[in-house]
Amino acid sequence: MEAIKVGLLGLGVVGGGTWNVLRRNQEEISRRAGRRIEIIRVAVRDVAKARQKIGSEADICNDPFEVVRDPRLDIVVELIGGTTLARELVLEAIDQGKHVVTANKALLALHGSEIFEAASRKGVMVAFEAAVAGGIPIIKAIREGLTANRIQWVAGIINGTTNYILSQMRNNKLSFAQALEQAQALGYAEADPTADIEGIDAAHKLTLLSAMAFGIPVQFSKAYIEGITELTEEDMQMAEFLGYRIKLLGITRRRDEGIELRVHPTLVPASSMLANVENAMNAVLVNGDAVGQTLYYGKGAGEEPTASAVVADLIDVTRLDTADPDHRVPFLAFQPDAMADIPILSSDDIHSAYYLRMTVDDRPGVLAEIAKELAKSGISIGSMIQQPADHGLARLVFLTHSAQEKLINQAMKVIEAMSFMKSKITRLRVEEF
Amino acid sequence: MEAIKVGLLGLGVVGGGTWNVLRRNQEEISRRAGRRIEIIRVAVRDVAKARQKIGSEADICNDPFEVVRDPRLDIVVELIGGTTLARELVLEAIDQGKHVVTANKALLALHGSEIFEAASRKGVMVAFEAAVAGGIPIIKAIREGLTANRIQWVAGIINGTTNYILSQMRNNKLSFAQALEQAQALGYAEADPTADIEGIDAAHKLTLLSAMAFGIPVQFSKAYIEGITELTEEDMQMAEFLGYRIKLLGITRRRDEGIELRVHPTLVPASSMLANVENAMNAVLVNGDAVGQTLYYGKGAGEEPTASAVVADLIDVTRLDTADPDHRVPFLAFQPDAMADIPILSSDDIHSAYYLRMTVDDRPGVLAEIAKELAKSGISIGSMIQQPADHGLARLVFLTHSAQEKLINQAMKVIEAMSFMKSKITRLRVEEF
Repeated sequence: MEAIKVGLLGLGVVGGGTWNVLRRNQEEISRRAGRRIEIIRVAVRDVAKARQKIGSEADICNDPFEVVRDPRLDIVVELIGGTTLARELVLEAIDQGKHVVTANKALLALHGSEIFEAASRKGVMVAFEAAVAGGIPIIKAIREGLTANRIQWVAGIINGTTNYILSQMRNNKLSFAQALEQAQALGYAEADPTADIEGIDAAHKLTLLSAMAFGIPVQFSKAYIEGITELTEEDMQMAEFLGYRIKLLGITRRRDEGIELRVHPTLVPASSMLANVENAMNAVLVNGDAVGQTLYYGKGAGEEPTASAVVADLIDVTRLDTADPDHRVPFLAFQPDAMADIPILSSDDIHSAYYLRMTVDDRPGVLAEIAKELAKSGISIGSMIQQPADHGLARLVFLTHSAQEKLINQAMKVIEAMSFMKSKITRLRVEEF
Repeated sequence: MEAIKVGLLGLGVVGGGTWNVLRRNQEEISRRAGRRIEIIRVAVRDVAKARQKIGSEADICNDPFEVVRDPRLDIVVELIGGTTLARELVLEAIDQGKHVVTANKALLALHGSEIFEAASRKGVMVAFEAAVAGGIPIIKAIREGLTANRIQWVAGIINGTTNYILSQMRNNKLSFAQALEQAQALGYAEADPTADIEGIDAAHKLTLLSAMAFGIPVQFSKAYIEGITELTEEDMQMAEFLGYRIKLLGITRRRDEGIELRVHPTLVPASSMLANVENAMNAVLVNGDAVGQTLYYGKGAGEEPTASAVVADLIDVTRLDTADPDHRVPFLAFQPDAMADIPILSSDDIHSAYYLRMTVDDRPGVLAEIAKELAKSGISIGSMIQQPADHGLARLVFLTHSAQEKLINQAMKVIEAMSFMKSKITRLRVEEF
């Protein structure tokens, strides 16, 4: 059978990895796919540099629209990132009747509905395994492997940069700033680390996982997002002391009232599998009603791990290239006409257990007043630590049982106004799974 | 679209689970699959008992061939187990042009080539996600998720019964016999536990994983299999002392000379993810050249976890029911005409590190003689422990670096003949991954 023809937009880290993996494993890949997969066109900013990298094996140009409109191509691989030009290119590729493979989580989290609808109309595929957790085939697991289940929740470490920083803070007792600097020096964090450390990248990925788990449209704007920039060594140590570790988790959970969609630092039991995912590794835990908990672990970023997912998508698309669209797996796991309209809950309506840390005057009655206020809001305390601090002050840490976040916020406001309070309350969420 | 019609052979643990999951999640499943999936016929031994279980929702009979030949059916689900009647039924279903979904690893490990060839000729699918690691979508991960990779090795805990027994031996200091008895009392082990404790069940599953990882035919008869019945509390404790845990692993690895296919108790570092898979849980670690290591973890057995995989297969088959067979994923990951003819290595040609435990006379020169013999065979020692034992004897434990098993066996034979030896050598394999 004739080779399937691919155009590649971008030859950076992931683009270069895709080129290399496809060439190195061409023989095994053809034996699996039943056809050769050939990148015949590449669009890059710097043509000379690209030619150094890949020689004359593909036509190289610097106009991505030229590639997208090339009638010889069956598939366009978008690896330039961003959400403006990438959106135009992907929509144009679809309009030209080409399948699209992309690693661009931001693009799909923001414009997924528009893109999937356009692809539906044209009968082409949009594959994006590389957009979440790099080389871990988590999208395939949720979209295809766990289809028998009513999925209850998904929770994952889906940003390697922040997991690396948190691991360094814990293992080497670094401050956030020190750990970030180290991550940047080693290439784990970008010069502008905002999207990673503020939780935005994780929220893009979680938005996609949530849509596939529950059959709802992508709704990034409704995600609750809290990064790791405010985490202190003190909280890392207190968490450890209490038998927990702090991880930046993406959590999406089905509740009777709607769906939780949230990214934030989270205390997880030290012995749990998620707690033991170290450095830049990723892991996703999925809970389905039939299968129970399953976990998927591996490298969530990097040249070849991400290329592994891009190329797997190319093979999937190659297999189904000429198939009736009915035979394909739906973009978001559920048939487009069978998506559900379940609301995303506001942060007020999240349910979680909480870690509350505060500094107070060390005098009789303080503990009783705080405990009373929590009880009044129906918040029950799981455990509590009091430690002496300098200058006649005391440090209090409460771990609550599960409660509605609105009630926690109200109680915090009342407690923070009490006369003995010497600090704001640091609030972190706790999940036992 | 009209519902797809399914016939179910067997309504035991997995059959009952399949019935329940399909009914309970019918609405979500239809939204994913695009059609309803209906079990309209069931074959069981005891019709009255089955009717109690499922009422009159399906036609129940006690002749499985009647079901297999029912012209209304699109898919036959084989859940009766065994390799004789099951083989006839599956081949007959294929001959009748029906797709087959099965959880039967023994059947496919022994008769896979015949069954896949028959299915190829008839253009029907044979899906078997439930045959390996229950609800964990590991077959989908290897066949589809990691297709970009040249897979180097697969190693997994793929038998829950033995992992439960080993966890109990370690955590509660039980003997093998005590732990087995407990596993039987709790339903984790069958009345006749041979297939589990002798490693046969794990080897069936490993045979399938190996075929899919490397694109070779199933060759169960060439697997090296060693169970856990000979493991002693002494070895569990020595392993622990050395920083390892003992797990029954299935390991298949590509080497220049051929493919290793082996199931045996294995020392793995205590901090590794596989070491921390407890009780009846399963986990599979896959190493691909692009993605690196990925891990898949979950329940490997049980009513609904296994049903989760059966029903996911039903959905996959439903989607591709009328598709051109070229569009489907090949049975063993590689196109049938592109399977490789790589030899399975004999146990002599396995490479591994080794744990060697022996009892010797406690006198000068013993250690030197043993070390000299190992060195003569080119076996280098990683670490060594000597402990006093009763009656003027000493216990020696060696951890070797990686060596060819033939050389280890030869050296063991020479050492066992030495005059100071007071025991046979207990040999276990060690893998660091």
